[in-house]
Amino acid sequence: MIILGIDPGLRTTGFGVIEKHGTKLRYIASGTIKTGLEGALPPRLKVILHGVSEIIATYQPACSAIEKVFVNVNPQSTLLLGQARGAAITALVGADLDVAEYTAVQVKQAVVGTGRAAKPQVQDMVARLLKLPGLPGSDAADALGVAICHAHTIDTLALLGAIAPDMIGLRMKNSRLVS
Amino acid sequence: MIILGIDPGLRTTGFGVIEKHGTKLRYIASGTIKTGLEGALPPRLKVILHGVSEIIATYQPACSAIEKVFVNVNPQSTLLLGQARGAAITALVGADLDVAEYTAVQVKQAVVGTGRAAKPQVQDMVARLLKLPGLPGSDAADALGVAICHAHTIDTLALLGAIAPDMIGLRMKNSRLVS
Repeated sequence: MIILGIDPGLRTTGFGVIEKHGTKLRYIASGTIKTGLEGALPPRLKVILHGVSEIIATYQPACSAIEKVFVNVNPQSTLLLGQARGAAITALVGADLDVAEYTAVQVKQAVVGTGRAAKPQVQDMVARLLKLPGLPGSDAADALGVAICHAHTIDTLALLGAIAPDMIGLRMKNSRLVS
Repeated sequence: MIILGIDPGLRTTGFGVIEKHGTKLRYIASGTIKTGLEGALPPRLKVILHGVSEIIATYQPACSAIEKVFVNVNPQSTLLLGQARGAAITALVGADLDVAEYTAVQVKQAVVGTGRAAKPQVQDMVARLLKLPGLPGSDAADALGVAICHAHTIDTLALLGAIAPDMIGLRMKNSRLVS
């Protein structure tokens, strides 16, 4: 199963593509989509749309995940970031991909083991988990972290799905014993 | 020339389609795209993407315009509105439409004649300008107002384009007289 992770931003949108074989993860690709600093918003969102669409066409992910963003101290920046994230999500759902959402804390928890990890720790752990020859850039590392976080969540959900029927069975047996 | 106007919002995105023949404007269609109040953000942005895409496929506009939004007192609302606007713009640029942006003040100025007009005045003037049999809903009226504002701007730009070469010619003549 190929998973696409996105770290959204107006200037720079990070992307990370990993493959999940059982519980093993393999690095496929990562990088950034840059819109430049100048110009009107619609053409910049078009760059994000085309960038994400091209990544999907190239790597054919089965599902996707994107980092939740938080309100900035500057409301105007919040509005711009929101629009960039909206463009990235629109590109994903436009390709009929399911989009999971994770906070930065959830991503850090999944990758480093603590929600209060610093950015270099995320880069370092992403490089170790995916056996990268060097450290990925910060935006690419965050995007790969989102993809790893989603891979772990899929495992957890599968585990819950596998346990739940047994537990129901156990309860049924017990109730039979009781009755 | 068919113009599509959009008034973006997460719950309700207004749209208005008008036709411009010279300086005459004709109403074609208007309405709203509703995402409902519940559910995760990605499926709601998908509703906006599909709604806008369907309107473009149906009415084949030559260009589009969207209202600029402002930061809300609630930063979380600003973030949500930003993402909804990002989805609408992405749908427009994804269909290779140019997207002009106008503030609410510019739209009111174009439609009512004053930037401080109230919503009912916008609805009333939109209905008069487009010879509608009744008042359009508030979101549809705003979207039609954005389209009307863009139609006026196109006229102004065309006028400037027509005047500018003459002015340059005049300046050249004058400089010839001087030299």
